[in-house]
Amino acid sequence: MASSQVGIIMGSESDLKVMSEAADVLRELGVEFELTVVSAHRTPDRMAEYAKQASGRGLKVVIAGAGGAAHLPGMVASHTILPVIGVPIKSSNSIDGWDSVLSILQMPSGVPVATVALNGARNAGLLAAQILATSDAALANKLRIYKYHLREKVENSIREIKIAGYENEFDQ
Amino acid sequence: MASSQVGIIMGSESDLKVMSEAADVLRELGVEFELTVVSAHRTPDRMAEYAKQASGRGLKVVIAGAGGAAHLPGMVASHTILPVIGVPIKSSNSIDGWDSVLSILQMPSGVPVATVALNGARNAGLLAAQILATSDAALANKLRIYKYHLREKVENSIREIKIAGYENEFDQ
Amino acid sequence: MASSQVGIIMGSESDLKVMSEAADVLRELGVEFELTVVSAHRTPDRMAEYAKQASGRGLKVVIAGAGGAAHLPGMVASHTILPVIGVPIKSSNSIDGWDSVLSILQMPSGVPVATVALNGARNAGLLAAQILATSDAALANKLRIYKYHLREKVENSIREIKIAGYENEFDQ
Amino acid sequence: MASSQVGIIMGSESDLKVMSEAADVLRELGVEFELTVVSAHRTPDRMAEYAKQASGRGLKVVIAGAGGAAHLPGMVASHTILPVIGVPIKSSNSIDGWDSVLSILQMPSGVPVATVALNGARNAGLLAAQILATSDAALANKLRIYKYHLREKVENSIREIKIAGYENEFDQ
Amino acid sequence: MASSQVGIIMGSESDLKVMSEAADVLRELGVEFELTVVSAHRTPDRMAEYAKQASGRGLKVVIAGAGGAAHLPGMVASHTILPVIGVPIKSSNSIDGWDSVLSILQMPSGVPVATVALNGARNAGLLAAQILATSDAALANKLRIYKYHLREKVENSIREIKIAGYENEFDQ
Amino acid sequence: MASSQVGIIMGSESDLKVMSEAADVLRELGVEFELTVVSAHRTPDRMAEYAKQASGRGLKVVIAGAGGAAHLPGMVASHTILPVIGVPIKSSNSIDGWDSVLSILQMPSGVPVATVALNGARNAGLLAAQILATSDAALANKLRIYKYHLREKVENSIREIKIAGYENEFDQ
Amino acid sequence: MASSQVGIIMGSESDLKVMSEAADVLRELGVEFELTVVSAHRTPDRMAEYAKQASGRGLKVVIAGAGGAAHLPGMVASHTILPVIGVPIKSSNSIDGWDSVLSILQMPSGVPVATVALNGARNAGLLAAQILATSDAALANKLRIYKYHLREKVENSIREIKIAGYENEFDQ
Amino acid sequence: MASSQVGIIMGSESDLKVMSEAADVLRELGVEFELTVVSAHRTPDRMAEYAKQASGRGLKVVIAGAGGAAHLPGMVASHTILPVIGVPIKSSNSIDGWDSVLSILQMPSGVPVATVALNGARNAGLLAAQILATSDAALANKLRIYKYHLREKVENSIREIKIAGYENEFDQ
Repeated sequence: MASSQVGIIMGSESDLKVMSEAADVLRELGVEFELTVVSAHRTPDRMAEYAKQASGRGLKVVIAGAGGAAHLPGMVASHTILPVIGVPIKSSNSIDGWDSVLSILQMPSGVPVATVALNGARNAGLLAAQILATSDAALANKLRIYKYHLREKVENSIREIKIAGYENEFDQ
Repeated sequence: MASSQVGIIMGSESDLKVMSEAADVLRELGVEFELTVVSAHRTPDRMAEYAKQASGRGLKVVIAGAGGAAHLPGMVASHTILPVIGVPIKSSNSIDGWDSVLSILQMPSGVPVATVALNGARNAGLLAAQILATSDAALANKLRIYKYHLREKVENSIREIKIAGYENEFDQ
Repeated sequence: MASSQVGIIMGSESDLKVMSEAADVLRELGVEFELTVVSAHRTPDRMAEYAKQASGRGLKVVIAGAGGAAHLPGMVASHTILPVIGVPIKSSNSIDGWDSVLSILQMPSGVPVATVALNGARNAGLLAAQILATSDAALANKLRIYKYHLREKVENSIREIKIAGYENEFDQ
Repeated sequence: MASSQVGIIMGSESDLKVMSEAADVLRELGVEFELTVVSAHRTPDRMAEYAKQASGRGLKVVIAGAGGAAHLPGMVASHTILPVIGVPIKSSNSIDGWDSVLSILQMPSGVPVATVALNGARNAGLLAAQILATSDAALANKLRIYKYHLREKVENSIREIKIAGYENEFDQ
Repeated sequence: MASSQVGIIMGSESDLKVMSEAADVLRELGVEFELTVVSAHRTPDRMAEYAKQASGRGLKVVIAGAGGAAHLPGMVASHTILPVIGVPIKSSNSIDGWDSVLSILQMPSGVPVATVALNGARNAGLLAAQILATSDAALANKLRIYKYHLREKVENSIREIKIAGYENEFDQ
Repeated sequence: MASSQVGIIMGSESDLKVMSEAADVLRELGVEFELTVVSAHRTPDRMAEYAKQASGRGLKVVIAGAGGAAHLPGMVASHTILPVIGVPIKSSNSIDGWDSVLSILQMPSGVPVATVALNGARNAGLLAAQILATSDAALANKLRIYKYHLREKVENSIREIKIAGYENEFDQ
Repeated sequence: MASSQVGIIMGSESDLKVMSEAADVLRELGVEFELTVVSAHRTPDRMAEYAKQASGRGLKVVIAGAGGAAHLPGMVASHTILPVIGVPIKSSNSIDGWDSVLSILQMPSGVPVATVALNGARNAGLLAAQILATSDAALANKLRIYKYHLREKVENSIREIKIAGYENEFDQ
Repeated sequence: MASSQVGIIMGSESDLKVMSEAADVLRELGVEFELTVVSAHRTPDRMAEYAKQASGRGLKVVIAGAGGAAHLPGMVASHTILPVIGVPIKSSNSIDGWDSVLSILQMPSGVPVATVALNGARNAGLLAAQILATSDAALANKLRIYKYHLREKVENSIREIKIAGYENEFDQ
């Protein structure tokens, strides 16, 4: 098995529905990753150990998702110099997601967390790939192709909206 | 030196201005305490060690104050079964205090933090004393006297407002 | 019947669905409790009487849940020196829970309420047990075992996520 | 001394700076009032007694101002059938006034509080006068004159803005 | 037909589901009222006319409900010296009710609106009755009985919770 | 085919359900429009080109709808001097619409966007017509008739509410 | 005197400090305007009359600024088919501007207000000019020059930042 | 001159006071960077060109700071596959920073922005260094030393707090 470059962790198994999108996009881009549950509050020693070993085990980026008083991304960042990407999750114990967002984003000076949108696990995966692509030209090319496909999807939407009967002189 | 029953910790020296009010009220009530800086993000191992040793060292309650993405109270609570009182601080890096409040209050099931008002360090000290007083009748009596003094302050206000020229038939 | 150490009260019968979780965890831990409805707004005299008698009746901690303009926890705290744990409830008449949280948390200096997360009644029960355990070594041991079970649940999640096909080199 | 029709109360002497505006407007309108400090949290028995006696003592309306977890207006309303006007105060221990507003406004079904704007004590005084004027034709006339003066102030502003050099064809 | 003392108006027919609760409680209390649709934005002249004639037609109180940018209560208040009770409605075009609350509550000095809780139409009806009761002893008695029934409902809840198996030593 | 005066664009095909209401009202008023998908983030060059050509192609107004970090309206406005109407959309990736509203409304000095209510696409269409009507007397007349129909709908509501049994002395 | 094309109104003389920026930019662009005080709450009849006469007096656009429960822009829009631009003002009686923004922005279907940023009076003036420029080619050219000057200011900033010692390879 | 690895851009020269902290930390760590003003709204073509050329010119990471409706980070991200770090700035035209945060954070799927705390430019610089350090062992070592210095600062605080008279048994 190839060694993982990205570690995806989440505070609870119930976060997997959201966080699997990070795994999906890394798989599409051919980036090796691992994925498991690490709870800052229920398994703080496991969390510290995971974070401390991350760099030594060969991980380059950690993606951490959590909801409510979401301490996992920030606490992992306190134990490693790897870039940590935080995914605020709108979990059932969250106040509309505001607690998740603020407790991940508002890190003090010295310990950054790269925060993405609420439930934005797919973007977390992409951001991890962009980080790796700063020293991996092949991956950079895959990201260029991914960006091209984003445009293609818009072009499909343009066609479908025409079929639905809406005219548009710009595209003629 | 008598052994401390309450440990007061804060994420940064700049929090002392707020957190010293917890120390003040404990001193007034004759409760032994210790006070130091423990940063969840800059000294995560110290934080874990402090929390793990707290019960063994004889502490009964921990008061933890922090601002912004305030992980200190929740992370201490993850390492100990002592009651942890969290004080959200409206620090300079906070968004009007909302981040401090939500990242302390919204703890997941299994790991409670007893949260008090924004900058409410005096109430944190009082709450610690109330907790200790559940098994300390002398301290309970001091708290009853403290409560009596709260009433006395209101009575002073009533007199001062009369002197300022406002009538009030209720108190006649 | 053994005497109750914890009094669980709530503003309305409709809060029972949330507040029964406080009762459940106290039952699991073998802590004696009582549970009833006390409305600050509809039965203010009952509320005052309940709070004033609480300490004399042998209660050590009061857990009070309420939603909307949630005055029950703070008003009980105004009448007793027992620790009062407030549970903000996202009731049908609440604005996404913000009113419940703020009207319980933001108590003035002198009258603390130990606030837990929105709908966090299970944590309220745990916090009550943690408070009692400051002078009850047997209960403290039960809380250590409870904390151990939290870790076990995470370990189960780790296994299930492996079975779902996600690899993880950290746990190997 | 004529008997007071309006009771103005506030949780703390520090609220007087805001609440004196309610007194000012009642004095302008010739409405008898009394004013004192009643703290829901520090003097809960005084609060209950004040509220219970209010109607019997001849008061027709109670104006109650408070900040933070502002329980005074709602608790007074729980003890009386008089209309209670609540003034949310942006006190030093308030989160930008949101806690004051929500803990006064969001009263449960059965116990209304007539809430005015943040720091809106002048409007509380006016509203009290409007309530009394429903059965006092002379007071109603004074309120009509007050409303007329509001228009006059706008007319002064219109003139001053013209003097400042701004033209306006509508008023020609 | 007896003359109406309370005018209930709302910005849209879709608000009737909420606003009918104001009518219900007035009917229970035997207070004469009228109810219709008056839109500040779609029928501004009707709104102004309604407000200007309200006092002359014998109305004593106006209850106005609206959602979103809710201008109806405040604009009615600008045209009359009658007390105006505003009911913020969480309509489909509202941002979680915040717009409705703020655009009714935050009236400028000189023009108060007595604001009740989000969707709090029943309390608006009660508040109207409390206002009328300041000069109607029979209605005041009905309100005392209503308050008594609030207590009775709590007592029923206490019994039901006992039947559900929860003990409570306070009520023994 | 007559040349379009209004260009309606949206960031994603999923926004069509909301944005079609802008098209509907323009069709009712006989205003020529075009409608297509233009994504600021997925097709930034198309966006820039659309905005730069808009005036030259004869468009007079652009309506742009987007959700979440909604950059489309503001970026179009940066490339054209045509009035740009922004429609904040409460899309699935939005935090209750607040992100959509703020990222459209809060444009810096020099580059305005005419923002309408959350999901207010119908009002965006009306506003576009109002803008065109400043130099089109026939369209202005259609808008007067539209306004008249708004009043008629209220009158229907008044009748229906009477049929539902609510009396109202004002309309007699 | 040339006839005004834009009417600038505000709820209070104290809003002039903000609203004069709308006048300034219209003067720079050579657009005729008038400016006065019109209060929705203190002078509702003047407001209705101003709005009703606006189109007949030759105005093409109305700019209305207000703070707190800001009803002026929406109420003017209810009386006219002219485009109404709303400027939310962070006045002293506003809750951080949120009330001003929401009570202007969230207009119901049928009555749009073109809302600009909090205190964004300069953008309101520009938007008015953009609206007029849809049928005034000379004004459109002035707006293109204005846009060019925005770019020039950025170019000055670029130079100043170089002088401050920051290098930048892009501009070489 | 060594080629820059990090491009720091900001929407306005007034953002330099905040954004210079990103430059400072990169200078401390010996990372080559460039810094200039790029406005999404006033110089959209410059912005697009800067973003498109960034990768080709050798930049590895872009740091973009902006306030209010902050479109710069997201729009740069739409034009490049480089990691883009967004710094929300609490500028004078911002509503307490909420607009800045939400319009940077809430990017749609496919176009991530790595968002740091409000005004968190120092963390943006650190995050850029962490990203570069994923393929630069020497820089990784500098970051480990930087992290060590964070701990040292806490140790200084601990000593100072002891000097201020607070005891602490943990550190003995």
